[in-house]
Amino acid sequence: MTDTPARPLGIAMIGYAFMGRAHSQAWRTVAAAFDVPEIARRVIVGRDEDAVAEAAHRLDWEEHSTDWRAVIAREDIDVVDICTPGFLHAEIAIAALEAGKHVLCEKPLANDTAEAEAMVRAAEAATARGQVAALGFTYRRIPALALARQFVQDGKLGEIRQLRAAYLQDWLVDAEAPMSWRLRKESAGSGALGDIGSHAIDQIQHLAGQRVTAVRGRLATLVPERPGPDGPEPVTVDDAAWASLELDGGAVASVEVSRMATGAKNQLTVEVYGTRGALRFDLENPNELWFLDATAPIAQQGYTRVLVTEPEHPYLEAWWPQGHVLGWENAFSNQARDLLVAIRDGQDAPYSPSFRDGLDLQRVLDAVIASDAADGATITL
Amino acid sequence: MTDTPARPLGIAMIGYAFMGRAHSQAWRTVAAAFDVPEIARRVIVGRDEDAVAEAAHRLDWEEHSTDWRAVIAREDIDVVDICTPGFLHAEIAIAALEAGKHVLCEKPLANDTAEAEAMVRAAEAATARGQVAALGFTYRRIPALALARQFVQDGKLGEIRQLRAAYLQDWLVDAEAPMSWRLRKESAGSGALGDIGSHAIDQIQHLAGQRVTAVRGRLATLVPERPGPDGPEPVTVDDAAWASLELDGGAVASVEVSRMATGAKNQLTVEVYGTRGALRFDLENPNELWFLDATAPIAQQGYTRVLVTEPEHPYLEAWWPQGHVLGWENAFSNQARDLLVAIRDGQDAPYSPSFRDGLDLQRVLDAVIASDAADGATITL
Amino acid sequence: MTDTPARPLGIAMIGYAFMGRAHSQAWRTVAAAFDVPEIARRVIVGRDEDAVAEAAHRLDWEEHSTDWRAVIAREDIDVVDICTPGFLHAEIAIAALEAGKHVLCEKPLANDTAEAEAMVRAAEAATARGQVAALGFTYRRIPALALARQFVQDGKLGEIRQLRAAYLQDWLVDAEAPMSWRLRKESAGSGALGDIGSHAIDQIQHLAGQRVTAVRGRLATLVPERPGPDGPEPVTVDDAAWASLELDGGAVASVEVSRMATGAKNQLTVEVYGTRGALRFDLENPNELWFLDATAPIAQQGYTRVLVTEPEHPYLEAWWPQGHVLGWENAFSNQARDLLVAIRDGQDAPYSPSFRDGLDLQRVLDAVIASDAADGATITL
Amino acid sequence: MTDTPARPLGIAMIGYAFMGRAHSQAWRTVAAAFDVPEIARRVIVGRDEDAVAEAAHRLDWEEHSTDWRAVIAREDIDVVDICTPGFLHAEIAIAALEAGKHVLCEKPLANDTAEAEAMVRAAEAATARGQVAALGFTYRRIPALALARQFVQDGKLGEIRQLRAAYLQDWLVDAEAPMSWRLRKESAGSGALGDIGSHAIDQIQHLAGQRVTAVRGRLATLVPERPGPDGPEPVTVDDAAWASLELDGGAVASVEVSRMATGAKNQLTVEVYGTRGALRFDLENPNELWFLDATAPIAQQGYTRVLVTEPEHPYLEAWWPQGHVLGWENAFSNQARDLLVAIRDGQDAPYSPSFRDGLDLQRVLDAVIASDAADGATITL
Repeated sequence: MTDTPARPLGIAMIGYAFMGRAHSQAWRTVAAAFDVPEIARRVIVGRDEDAVAEAAHRLDWEEHSTDWRAVIAREDIDVVDICTPGFLHAEIAIAALEAGKHVLCEKPLANDTAEAEAMVRAAEAATARGQVAALGFTYRRIPALALARQFVQDGKLGEIRQLRAAYLQDWLVDAEAPMSWRLRKESAGSGALGDIGSHAIDQIQHLAGQRVTAVRGRLATLVPERPGPDGPEPVTVDDAAWASLELDGGAVASVEVSRMATGAKNQLTVEVYGTRGALRFDLENPNELWFLDATAPIAQQGYTRVLVTEPEHPYLEAWWPQGHVLGWENAFSNQARDLLVAIRDGQDAPYSPSFRDGLDLQRVLDAVIASDAADGATITL
Repeated sequence: MTDTPARPLGIAMIGYAFMGRAHSQAWRTVAAAFDVPEIARRVIVGRDEDAVAEAAHRLDWEEHSTDWRAVIAREDIDVVDICTPGFLHAEIAIAALEAGKHVLCEKPLANDTAEAEAMVRAAEAATARGQVAALGFTYRRIPALALARQFVQDGKLGEIRQLRAAYLQDWLVDAEAPMSWRLRKESAGSGALGDIGSHAIDQIQHLAGQRVTAVRGRLATLVPERPGPDGPEPVTVDDAAWASLELDGGAVASVEVSRMATGAKNQLTVEVYGTRGALRFDLENPNELWFLDATAPIAQQGYTRVLVTEPEHPYLEAWWPQGHVLGWENAFSNQARDLLVAIRDGQDAPYSPSFRDGLDLQRVLDAVIASDAADGATITL
Repeated sequence: MTDTPARPLGIAMIGYAFMGRAHSQAWRTVAAAFDVPEIARRVIVGRDEDAVAEAAHRLDWEEHSTDWRAVIAREDIDVVDICTPGFLHAEIAIAALEAGKHVLCEKPLANDTAEAEAMVRAAEAATARGQVAALGFTYRRIPALALARQFVQDGKLGEIRQLRAAYLQDWLVDAEAPMSWRLRKESAGSGALGDIGSHAIDQIQHLAGQRVTAVRGRLATLVPERPGPDGPEPVTVDDAAWASLELDGGAVASVEVSRMATGAKNQLTVEVYGTRGALRFDLENPNELWFLDATAPIAQQGYTRVLVTEPEHPYLEAWWPQGHVLGWENAFSNQARDLLVAIRDGQDAPYSPSFRDGLDLQRVLDAVIASDAADGATITL
Repeated sequence: MTDTPARPLGIAMIGYAFMGRAHSQAWRTVAAAFDVPEIARRVIVGRDEDAVAEAAHRLDWEEHSTDWRAVIAREDIDVVDICTPGFLHAEIAIAALEAGKHVLCEKPLANDTAEAEAMVRAAEAATARGQVAALGFTYRRIPALALARQFVQDGKLGEIRQLRAAYLQDWLVDAEAPMSWRLRKESAGSGALGDIGSHAIDQIQHLAGQRVTAVRGRLATLVPERPGPDGPEPVTVDDAAWASLELDGGAVASVEVSRMATGAKNQLTVEVYGTRGALRFDLENPNELWFLDATAPIAQQGYTRVLVTEPEHPYLEAWWPQGHVLGWENAFSNQARDLLVAIRDGQDAPYSPSFRDGLDLQRVLDAVIASDAADGATITL
């Protein structure tokens, strides 16, 4: 644990697009909801001077900057929150960690494994010095999913045998939607698998409390060409993917992702089947956890819709009275809370997922791709 | 209990329209599903010779007849099943009971209270002789509602304090739908209140195990005129109604019915709130009972969707394996089963609802109408 | 329209309990989400010096004060946001309006009609001077309910004939829950009816675009005594209530509220039935609007679950991408947005509901109580 | 088309267990619901004299027999309905077809491909002579699934790109549930894949109107040993399986089946995603079809819950009024109707699925198994 400075923890955020907006909301909100160390929203960083100035004003940061290296060097900055595109994560995160800062890095950890490995080395060195290196799989901080994890840890499901996760979206249904950097392998790394499949696989491992040991995978590009400025261009990433996973605790899991699932807006569904119970979750109704207690009398058994808004539920004491539901953005405040508590309490409240968790997840994703390339053969991790 | 004859129980059914079809289905099915006394579908009775002959053939009855009095007099007839319009119930039921037959009478018991009282006298005299006089509030035989009743009786809900029932349909939404006998007070008795509100109030009393003691009511005719053959005619029955009920166990209940609830096809919903639990049911998903156990740990509390298809559930052992749902019609087979068992076992398996239950219910309906006529004043029963 | 000052609009908020927290969240958030006039969270006011100081710090206000009169007099305060208990609304609101400030007043407008009438006079005088006097029925700003209103206004439902609203909670199920000021008529004004029934009736009028003209009502106190410090005390407000309403456009509506509905956490349900369509909403799933288009081909008709998270939906362009749901609190930011826009744009964007709407609603609530006192007789407004 | 005899079509049913009960219900019911050629339930056949006699009585067949060969030879038998275990299908079906009878054979067609091929040869020869050889994938006759097929055929979904099907049950969750013939490869052929996965794949092909051309599969046995009379025995069939399918119209599909999905009773879910719309279905709510029209205005788009009980819906005109739901068993009556109409109308109303469809499906299942045996490699059909 580093000594928490007497002054507020200074936050610097790199990036101000979608994730920057969501993280800003969290930094503005966290102290009103939770008992956390005091913070100051010192500086927001971006490449475009005018745009970042406007963002600083709108998102309520004290200052703005176009020079992340200078910001990282500042004495009054304690936490660096990285919301840039993935290909910039490694350079910034490693520099920030080496400068002695706590780091929160948005997922995915990095665009390739070599970078991710370097980041893990920097993170583990920093952690040994008492810094926190946190990876942002924010859905772990959705109260219903945190409760699901708790139920599994408490043994309410017995031994976990089978899981199913799907993450379905529909923003590529229109075959005339234009080509973009997100659909090119060189710029995006991967397609639906890396973008949303990573969430699905993270939940599988996190909820089961088990690690993936073997993978069979399949990728598909259902619309292989899209209009570019100079005519049709090939789509070089997957727009749908499937994987079958073996876990080290004996469970099996399936994953399916798609950007072509007409009518699915942001539908991450997770199902966990154990010997004593089961759980179901749907991100489009994120305040509900469906729990089945298989030890209840048969005549009254079934899935119970738990509305996760009670003070007894994870994070909820900080929010509103029972029945007053939370939105997608609240998970980011919960995440900020956990990060600040980890900074304050050190090894008593270690932050998860770590950079290593991110690297491990990247290896699972790589294995899915490798399996598909090997005509579906099992890839062992 | 009458001595069950060595020969099969002979069934005669009067009426062959909608209810006649449903009851025929039950008589054809009951012995395949349940252990019941043997029956024979002897004769179906109607006024139109050709139509009833066709119905006998189609619905698989041995004979047909246009003379219900002659049929009732037959030695080989043991059970008279009355599926005629309500205004014929009293005459037929009384005659059949006096002829020593068991009677199943479709709801409503009668079109007016005087008739209903005469029917109760006949029924109680017959019951004293060992006959069964059964009234057909078939929804009591929907397994999920039977299970709901069981849960209340078993104390799973604690003390019942509040109930809500609504029965919503939409077949009169179109203001140009033509005038019919169902919309005239003289032919139909009442409108939505009597037709579907009776089901709602029967469920309230049956589930609560309490009787209505006081009523405030309101009726409305939202489309006051409809096209007749010679121009617009006044609609003289309610197409929507509301009532607030006090029950003798201290509970309060509300009822709402409508034939104008656009998009509601046949939606009877019932909610029961007790000190230890609660129940919800919707007739459009009749295989589900939603049960909340308020004594469960808060963190896992919520409504449990019980799929009522387990052998442990009422009537289900007779049907299909778990997860294989029943339809609306199965409740009629369950009803036939209960009637046959009541005939076989006499006071060990008394049939409910009785004609007296039907009379009591009629009085509640009358009280709703009287309250509305008295500008909403409380009517005590 | 007042001239918007060149400096930011100065906000003062009176009260820092539950509603104060929710409004603070909105004031911190509104400018990040919407294009609105610049604001400054100048001062938060409360009676307890230490507590309000702590709240100012936690909720991120520049200053705190215990003297609302002094605050209202300040030159740099433009908007007074009243989050106090209801009995203080009149005095503060009138003073603030007379001091030339814009006012946002939480519901209910006042604890009695005389106060409410004085507030309306002050508000209408102020409005004539270009000030905004806004009443906080925040649920109107839930996007799904705003969309519902839009659908009705656009004629998608045709003529509205029938509405149903219920607001069910369960926090008084336990008969041993102690007596409190909320359960005494002199301190709370009324019980469930005023607290949550007001929301239900506001939605009915707002969605229908019709005004209540006549009422029949009923109140009940299901647990008539509760433990006080010196033994049992009588509960003198309703814990459940029912009303049947006539509206000036010809529709009829029912309302039911309860604090005894075991398992209902914060369940405001609204149903609207029209000649061409219907709508359903449930506050426990506030991102969904269920819409039935009765003009669609029968074979594909039914309730459509609209996930109200598209840029085309009210308020949504300001928030997150499709499928990323909002929580209860976002409606307060939407409300702050509408207030600031009304201040900026004056009669081009008049704020609704007005204080007069609040008075009218209070009269409907009073009529329900009067009807119950008159044994259910119709009370005309 | 054969000449329909003047006398009723004589039905013989071989087998009287679960499927025999369901088929009997259908034969007793079909003529009451539909306009079909007249039938007579002539004879039910089984191996155990007493048991089949009891079944004949209970299920209301005229006669019983223990000699299926003699029954098939009877002049008065026109239709042979085969409800035996799968390993007997080939012998009986081929004999019956060669004897000139119409045949309805329960799924699966046969236990191995060689038998299935022989059956197809017999069926195609018989079809050429005007007989009907029908395979019983009864779920095609669930009205909601028939409607789904209609919607796809009518182009309401546009081009089908992606499908998902899962069939989840939980009857093997208990690891102490004893070993049985269903869990041995030699007696059962396969496990969950063949038993329930066949339904899922049949729906995928039927709804998409496309054929599977390539397969990747995986099988798992999550509880590898179960108690036998003499100690633990190995389970030699799959209790969970996954497959990824390519279809000849360009769609991709996934299938997942499990007998270990705690809390899933009989949950076949099917999702179909097209360029203009989407469909979802769940066998535990079989009267609902969820349809999304992606061409509707965005602001009102979403999944519509179609309650499939309107006269405009497939098969429904024969049943009950709108809102009166059907059960699992009604699909068997619908199947009997289609078979009788096919017998009556010949090539004007050809029956589907044919024996060849069953063989094709068997080949897909075999490909899944082969793929798993080949470490997930793609198997082309």
